[in-house]
Amino acid sequence: MQEKNRKRASGCPIAFGLDIFGDRWTLLVIREIMLRGKRTYSEILEADEGIATNILIDRLKHLESEGILEKRRDPENRRSFIYNLTKKGRDLAPILIEIIIWSGAHDHRPNARHDVLEKIRKDRAGFEADLRDS
Amino acid sequence: MQEKNRKRASGCPIAFGLDIFGDRWTLLVIREIMLRGKRTYSEILEADEGIATNILIDRLKHLESEGILEKRRDPENRRSFIYNLTKKGRDLAPILIEIIIWSGAHDHRPNARHDVLEKIRKDRAGFEADLRDS
Repeated sequence: MQEKNRKRASGCPIAFGLDIFGDRWTLLVIREIMLRGKRTYSEILEADEGIATNILIDRLKHLESEGILEKRRDPENRRSFIYNLTKKGRDLAPILIEIIIWSGAHDHRPNARHDVLEKIRKDRAGFEADLRDS
Repeated sequence: MQEKNRKRASGCPIAFGLDIFGDRWTLLVIREIMLRGKRTYSEILEADEGIATNILIDRLKHLESEGILEKRRDPENRRSFIYNLTKKGRDLAPILIEIIIWSGAHDHRPNARHDVLEKIRKDRAGFEADLRDS
């Protein structure tokens, strides 16, 4: 994370974004919350890709410090925390959608999942609104 | 790159994309080619963010092996190579555009550059077509 947290000073919007979410895991954590409705550390840890505990802890802290997630105590379990996307986090929805569309066109592996792509093709605006409401 | 080249088998389109371009540098190399018309190793090396030679060599190889860039000898200088985006590479344009829009809304640093964002706001379809033609 050390390299990742170092912000580049070029002023370029692409560099700004990559400094925040340009790594193998950050947008997958966002996916778990936005597309799969996960809310707690334990739920996100169950992601299919097998995220390591230290990486998940690091990314949740990072996303909170960047103002993309907000953390509050779970009212039903005071020892647990709930993570919610902020406006800045929900605004990542179109980036995830474009990644899904790109992969849909170029992932030719037999196990490639196209279910979400179908939803986007049918009603992109509605799909994006659902993500933002998640 | 070792970790980055390892493809995750979940079938998720977001994981597929991040396995290819989910790092601090890959999409910046694409930016240099797509938005700034760079074509050679030496030109891309001049990027504002100061990409290290070993990282650039690694990323160019990676993008070529993923079918995102194609490399050919420069007809005007047979010792040099020219890199061009393939269809798969040009299809990354909407992802770059969404990153620019997101950063435009959330990068509040005084040196944040908004010139490209203005072009996207004025005519997104035209801007995307220009990127694809680059």
